[in-house]
Amino acid sequence: MTHVDIRRQLRALWSEYSAPEREEIFEGLPAEDAGELLLDLATNDQIELLSPMDPGQRAAWLRVLPPDELADLLQEVDDPSGWLEGLSESARREVEALLAYREDHAGGLMSPRFARVRPDLTAEQALAYLRGQAGDKSETIYTLYVLDSDQKLLGVLSLRDLIAQPLQTRISDIMTTDLVTAPSDLDQEHLSRLFVQNRLMAIPVVDADGRMQGVVTVDDIVDVVQEEATEDIQKMGGQEALDMPYLRTGFAEMTRKRAGWLTALFLGEMLTATAMGYFEEEIARAVVLALFVPLIISSGGNSGSQATTLVIRAMALGELRLADWWRVARRELITGVCLGLILGVVGTLRISLWQHLFGTYGTEAVRIGLTVACSLVGVVTFGTLAGSMLPFLLRRIGVDPASASAPFVATLVDVSGLVIYFSVARVILGI
Amino acid sequence: MTHVDIRRQLRALWSEYSAPEREEIFEGLPAEDAGELLLDLATNDQIELLSPMDPGQRAAWLRVLPPDELADLLQEVDDPSGWLEGLSESARREVEALLAYREDHAGGLMSPRFARVRPDLTAEQALAYLRGQAGDKSETIYTLYVLDSDQKLLGVLSLRDLIAQPLQTRISDIMTTDLVTAPSDLDQEHLSRLFVQNRLMAIPVVDADGRMQGVVTVDDIVDVVQEEATEDIQKMGGQEALDMPYLRTGFAEMTRKRAGWLTALFLGEMLTATAMGYFEEEIARAVVLALFVPLIISSGGNSGSQATTLVIRAMALGELRLADWWRVARRELITGVCLGLILGVVGTLRISLWQHLFGTYGTEAVRIGLTVACSLVGVVTFGTLAGSMLPFLLRRIGVDPASASAPFVATLVDVSGLVIYFSVARVILGI
Repeated sequence: MTHVDIRRQLRALWSEYSAPEREEIFEGLPAEDAGELLLDLATNDQIELLSPMDPGQRAAWLRVLPPDELADLLQEVDDPSGWLEGLSESARREVEALLAYREDHAGGLMSPRFARVRPDLTAEQALAYLRGQAGDKSETIYTLYVLDSDQKLLGVLSLRDLIAQPLQTRISDIMTTDLVTAPSDLDQEHLSRLFVQNRLMAIPVVDADGRMQGVVTVDDIVDVVQEEATEDIQKMGGQEALDMPYLRTGFAEMTRKRAGWLTALFLGEMLTATAMGYFEEEIARAVVLALFVPLIISSGGNSGSQATTLVIRAMALGELRLADWWRVARRELITGVCLGLILGVVGTLRISLWQHLFGTYGTEAVRIGLTVACSLVGVVTFGTLAGSMLPFLLRRIGVDPASASAPFVATLVDVSGLVIYFSVARVILGI
Repeated sequence: MTHVDIRRQLRALWSEYSAPEREEIFEGLPAEDAGELLLDLATNDQIELLSPMDPGQRAAWLRVLPPDELADLLQEVDDPSGWLEGLSESARREVEALLAYREDHAGGLMSPRFARVRPDLTAEQALAYLRGQAGDKSETIYTLYVLDSDQKLLGVLSLRDLIAQPLQTRISDIMTTDLVTAPSDLDQEHLSRLFVQNRLMAIPVVDADGRMQGVVTVDDIVDVVQEEATEDIQKMGGQEALDMPYLRTGFAEMTRKRAGWLTALFLGEMLTATAMGYFEEEIARAVVLALFVPLIISSGGNSGSQATTLVIRAMALGELRLADWWRVARRELITGVCLGLILGVVGTLRISLWQHLFGTYGTEAVRIGLTVACSLVGVVTFGTLAGSMLPFLLRRIGVDPASASAPFVATLVDVSGLVIYFSVARVILGI
């Protein structure tokens, strides 16, 4: 097995080892492999491994981490002051500057180490400079950032373009001034969209005056995109995001993150008992009505789940903006009516078939069928519309649209679905 | 505005323009900007723009696309033979080779153009070679692949390491032989995990004999990760994946992709009417039982939705394998009981309070409260367990676990939830 294979196996099995075993494995590895393993581990695993060490030993390992990852780690440590001891003055300053940014903003994702050149250098001078940087710790040397004496970003140049040029060419003549930049407080969702849309390998982060602060590279963005999707998916399942791998989340934490929403939804769903209470007499007079309650309200919930999922994802991908709500509403209204009609027909067929075969619904079969069919059209249309509009509403009031989870929409639709169903029944069955 | 800004705006507004407007805009742009815009557009937009052109003009634009993107495009064209005319013999061979691979496999994502060197070159010779490649169309020149005369991959070397070396160093002395490679039929989900876990910028694709076929770069993986998450989210919402932006999906297509699952779920949910039919007499004797039906079955559905979402995502991220099912089952069983107890207590409090305030439930209040509480524990435990196990079951039989959508689990749990509820009622209320 190669070193890469060994490290890959160790990392895959890391969660299977106990804390003392992990320490033992880490200390048993040659220093270089241990450093690479440390880089590969998740932030919480890094912290667990480094916490028990004495400050000097710990500082030696911390120096392995690039400043952006080090800052991420320190943001999750309870008392980071002890961890900064033993770092060089410059490394400490770098990390402290990064700690001022939010972890999920461009400033928190960027590395402050990048290859910077002056516009009046020649290609040959720039290459010589890069040769010195290559062994160094710049995040990337494949993009050169051209800065003036005030650290303002004038242009960029890829190493690829640079080496294709005659050695005496001036940087200012070959740099690109058509720049895609990000402010340091751009959130990671928008930042990842900039990468995807512009097919970029790196994006420079600049302050309000155009001074370059650091660089975010595309490999960091892969993590961001994964992480954002995971958070959205977990929220859309009707719970808080775990922020940690499933098997690594403690039992108490897991229950807490699920119980909160589950209880909230339960409290909301209690309104169904109240709503049905209003129709208790109708049910007593025609118990057959109760039989279709789950079928009808779940159809509203399912169509709502489809609509909310589509809209939340389209928002996350930047395909839908707040202003599109009216377009979406019209579209979903028509879709909802169509889907409702389809289910209405299927429901009518089912009732006719049972009536024909078993005479289940007695003399009222036709009117029961009609009640179910009309209710389905109403409930599915309402579910579709509610499911598609809820994410817009949440975003409008500043809440993450992904909170418009399938269970949330289903709860909303259950209550209104009951009211629609029993109101239709009152009219058609005349009870 | 810079050229980049103009292109960005055009792309953002692209869906707002009509087809003739798009053509006009495209033809009005300077050739270089038009080429960049074409590169930026989604595959279906590229096809729409190029379809009406005559073969010669179209071929000129197709030459702008790198071979992997060209192959993606041709896979979506109805009759690609006419499109290949006018391409150079070598470009056509490249594209035809890529068309043999599935779009979502490593082979379909790779570019066949990469920087290849022999092991006995010196650093200086390798740099001279790269200088020639830089203007060329290699996907990346920042990683050099060291091949023997049989095209077998011996090692890799970053341009960064290369330029830091003395000019006379031999490639074979500085290349890394610790390789992460992918077979051409590796699916994109696994491939993206290789990138994330190994923090790589590029992964070489090799055939069974170790011969290098091409290279996949990390910027392509960002798209893949987005796309996979979108597909999973849409499936988890209880529908087919759209494979296209929301606003670009035609009305008929959209309805079809939603109606299929919605009808299937509706047919499954019909079992609730059958199940409730069995308990019709119990309901007639105690109508109050019917009032809690939506509350109880939705709690099962919500807890199932949480569990299935967590498990599906953890599987997609490679955190859970099939063999972990037993670990998950134990964990979710305990979680389910806890969550059920929490809801049971809340439910009991609600019934006691209403009884105290309004005397809603008459003399049977205590037993009704007990029935609801016990049913909640049973239904939530069952929902949690069913939701967590369904993705394992689906994966075992070769179906995408993301199909274990929240609505699917809810439907499963609704039917069994009714049986649990009325069985508990029979025992406690003795009806």
